[in-house]
Amino acid sequence: MSEQVSRFGVTELEELPEDLRERVGVIAGKSGFVPNIFRALGRRPAELRAFLDYHDALMERSDGLSKAERELVVVATSGANHCTYCVVAHGAILRIRSKDPQLADRVSSNPWQVELDERGRAIVDLALALSQDSALFGEPDLAAARDAGLTEDEIWDVGAITALFAMSNRLAHLTALRPNDEFYGMGR
Amino acid sequence: MSEQVSRFGVTELEELPEDLRERVGVIAGKSGFVPNIFRALGRRPAELRAFLDYHDALMERSDGLSKAERELVVVATSGANHCTYCVVAHGAILRIRSKDPQLADRVSSNPWQVELDERGRAIVDLALALSQDSALFGEPDLAAARDAGLTEDEIWDVGAITALFAMSNRLAHLTALRPNDEFYGMGR
Amino acid sequence: MSEQVSRFGVTELEELPEDLRERVGVIAGKSGFVPNIFRALGRRPAELRAFLDYHDALMERSDGLSKAERELVVVATSGANHCTYCVVAHGAILRIRSKDPQLADRVSSNPWQVELDERGRAIVDLALALSQDSALFGEPDLAAARDAGLTEDEIWDVGAITALFAMSNRLAHLTALRPNDEFYGMGR
Amino acid sequence: MSEQVSRFGVTELEELPEDLRERVGVIAGKSGFVPNIFRALGRRPAELRAFLDYHDALMERSDGLSKAERELVVVATSGANHCTYCVVAHGAILRIRSKDPQLADRVSSNPWQVELDERGRAIVDLALALSQDSALFGEPDLAAARDAGLTEDEIWDVGAITALFAMSNRLAHLTALRPNDEFYGMGR
Amino acid sequence: MSEQVSRFGVTELEELPEDLRERVGVIAGKSGFVPNIFRALGRRPAELRAFLDYHDALMERSDGLSKAERELVVVATSGANHCTYCVVAHGAILRIRSKDPQLADRVSSNPWQVELDERGRAIVDLALALSQDSALFGEPDLAAARDAGLTEDEIWDVGAITALFAMSNRLAHLTALRPNDEFYGMGR
Amino acid sequence: MSEQVSRFGVTELEELPEDLRERVGVIAGKSGFVPNIFRALGRRPAELRAFLDYHDALMERSDGLSKAERELVVVATSGANHCTYCVVAHGAILRIRSKDPQLADRVSSNPWQVELDERGRAIVDLALALSQDSALFGEPDLAAARDAGLTEDEIWDVGAITALFAMSNRLAHLTALRPNDEFYGMGR
Repeated sequence: MSEQVSRFGVTELEELPEDLRERVGVIAGKSGFVPNIFRALGRRPAELRAFLDYHDALMERSDGLSKAERELVVVATSGANHCTYCVVAHGAILRIRSKDPQLADRVSSNPWQVELDERGRAIVDLALALSQDSALFGEPDLAAARDAGLTEDEIWDVGAITALFAMSNRLAHLTALRPNDEFYGMGR
Repeated sequence: MSEQVSRFGVTELEELPEDLRERVGVIAGKSGFVPNIFRALGRRPAELRAFLDYHDALMERSDGLSKAERELVVVATSGANHCTYCVVAHGAILRIRSKDPQLADRVSSNPWQVELDERGRAIVDLALALSQDSALFGEPDLAAARDAGLTEDEIWDVGAITALFAMSNRLAHLTALRPNDEFYGMGR
Repeated sequence: MSEQVSRFGVTELEELPEDLRERVGVIAGKSGFVPNIFRALGRRPAELRAFLDYHDALMERSDGLSKAERELVVVATSGANHCTYCVVAHGAILRIRSKDPQLADRVSSNPWQVELDERGRAIVDLALALSQDSALFGEPDLAAARDAGLTEDEIWDVGAITALFAMSNRLAHLTALRPNDEFYGMGR
Repeated sequence: MSEQVSRFGVTELEELPEDLRERVGVIAGKSGFVPNIFRALGRRPAELRAFLDYHDALMERSDGLSKAERELVVVATSGANHCTYCVVAHGAILRIRSKDPQLADRVSSNPWQVELDERGRAIVDLALALSQDSALFGEPDLAAARDAGLTEDEIWDVGAITALFAMSNRLAHLTALRPNDEFYGMGR
Repeated sequence: MSEQVSRFGVTELEELPEDLRERVGVIAGKSGFVPNIFRALGRRPAELRAFLDYHDALMERSDGLSKAERELVVVATSGANHCTYCVVAHGAILRIRSKDPQLADRVSSNPWQVELDERGRAIVDLALALSQDSALFGEPDLAAARDAGLTEDEIWDVGAITALFAMSNRLAHLTALRPNDEFYGMGR
Repeated sequence: MSEQVSRFGVTELEELPEDLRERVGVIAGKSGFVPNIFRALGRRPAELRAFLDYHDALMERSDGLSKAERELVVVATSGANHCTYCVVAHGAILRIRSKDPQLADRVSSNPWQVELDERGRAIVDLALALSQDSALFGEPDLAAARDAGLTEDEIWDVGAITALFAMSNRLAHLTALRPNDEFYGMGR
């Protein structure tokens, strides 16, 4: 089988504009490798820049959902969307952030029925409702989230992260994006 | 019926950080009103900023797809996703950019069968394949697009716009976003 | 793009049997044009006659649902069925009968979540239940309609109109029926 | 279990307006019983009249499809729509018209894969395409029918019968219509 | 049309290993014919043996569900799965065991809405939930079954029979298995 | 979160009838633990016995598909069915048998598009066709498998394993079966 990372080729760190080279360099420094999503999106620096900005605005936010909960939304919706890159890469991050080596595999294989505490369940239910059949998303979905104690800001977080990964999942499907080898074993 | 613009309230132009106030102000100046998506996303300036950057990177790009073709992707996928805000707002823009007062209604009501020329059909087919059942998106979809003469860069455009509006549609469903009254009649 | 009205050709007013020529002539007189559905079905006068009879029995009935509510059922189910002809033609009639220039676009783009008053919501929910996954239609759907105050006769109306347009939508898909230009702008 | 024929009650032969009493009486005379669909629709004579006219125009037509082929369309689409009344009642008629006591059970349980000759397969494929996901119905469906030798008039027949039973199936689901006992054993 | 029993040919009674010849012989003795499923699976004696063991363990069990209720589960899920062999063969057995000549046709054509008593409805609902969209199967499905009075052992029965026929239905679809002529008329 | 292994409790090795105790004991000896499926099914020894027989007849067969290919079928269809137990447990076995630590995660997250060689792709396509929408399974699915060089016996293997795990997946969903901790890390 081929080792192709993206159907549209990759742009290596040193080929990126300076601001992106620096920014992705910091991530690569921490992880020890450049996540393939950045190599694939590097083909279009303006889009990579906006992607990073959107990602950081939602995934690095300190208020509201915990970091692990943010990754829970990503892994649940990416599992439902059958997005291999996001399941493998964010599965790794979820293992690390949740300190639970099994959670990602259980969430991604069946987000609808994975056993979670009440708050986790409410987060995942809300995310799936918006991710999967979004034309039907409505007041009952919001009411269930509020009943489980989610604040308006937390609901926005769940919804906006779900929306961002509706995009990311499709970018990964578009490019047939290959997860970096390193992700598979992280946090196990 | 209520006149609510967004489930999470709105942020008016004058409440936005200066850079966004200026940027959205330019759009409002041209259109004669502030599109409601900006009033809804203004609640989170960092997210609105990234959204605008992503939007402009894809929708204002001068290479590849024409401006009308970019809107065609938006209206087709938003129709399939049953996103009222995007159908109404981008339907208006498509009417203007295509100089065809009927195209938007026909595309949004049935993107799968609307009569288009070969290139238009290929663009919409590619967009729907990635938008709707994205886990199945694969080489045959790309091959069909290439057969119709789309370049790699145009295929990326179609795919990336589809992905962006997979996100936008879900933000609109999350917020129950109401289209501005002005959009309904524009370009008819 | 072609200007084809129906895949199976059209029959003009003067080619119809006398009773139909007169009957469709009255409609054409009021609207200022012959709606394309009659030109398409004219190929088979006996079927056109039965279609008109069925249509009038349900859409011109004075008891029960208001005229606007009848069109609401048509636009909601035709939107869910992605029937361009019915969305455009009956969208026009709904705009006129509801005196609301936006309602049709909002109903047709997302009938599941369009904001309606309680009675309107109950009508549309009942119609969608029967239209979309009709094998599951059952007592809970009827109970919800009754709870919202619909009478047995009104429930029949909603159900029978939904059924009639399950047929009409398929006739329009069969013939790739093109809406008359006049419908697009009516009542805006 | 209840013996209820229709959720909305029934109208007996003698309660019908004279023209319908006579017309349904002829059918009852031939079958030996009044098919329940007429007892259920009798609640609204104008609708029953239009229904009978439409039904006769399509099911009793002498050109084009054979009588058995017309029933094949009905049983295939009613099976796919899980309509018990139409499967049982028209299954009986199909057994009689095809002189094949097994065909109806095989068609209704799996219309997609039931073994048929080439013409029968083309008829059922066309009917299912229009019945099930009608927004996707398009030129390839028509081309396949033409390749199997169906004329334009036969294609119209298949499409129009499919459309009529999209309506009938929903009327039966609306009323929870009970098949007459007699239908179950006819033609076996 | 062909008289093919299975896409992979059949193995007749006398070709089976002795234990299977005897065992299937007993069944054939009682029915008067060898059900085609055994002729098709005979190609792989070890699989036929395991199939018979599994089948008997669940369908001949004396505790818990009645024999008729076991067949109700089979016919309901096989109807939903559009499995002609199982609908026809187990429909016959259901007619005999329930002493109701109509029940099988009504259950198989629309298991979701067929009128049943409360216990029957609970059994069928549980079976359909596990059969159709099994990733969503969860506590609410079990709670509904318990509310209707099903014991844990009866719930296991319904679930395990549903699972067994998820397998059987696929074996029948794999082999395009033809029901024996005798089944069609049994118990009518 | 609970540590519940099965909704219906578990039966430990020493509580099983002697033949099963010995047979499952051998497996436990090799793996170092008793796979939870056996502890859950032990509640019904006759069913566990048939399950083991069926499993061995198909998964331990020496002709035809390789052992790794048999697990490929299991992981692909269990991924499509969102069955956590089977994805985790058979994912571990696939890692070991394929000597590829990444294959299971890639297959289970998106079996439709995972990159495989031609034979692997044909095996998975056949399995998914039968697993997912089995009413549509037909000659074109078989023809594609034969074109890729699969023999009739290999096609039977793929089909029968798919069928067996249509059952297993539902047993796991029924019992909310928890994968043993050991499976998560095996073969990585």
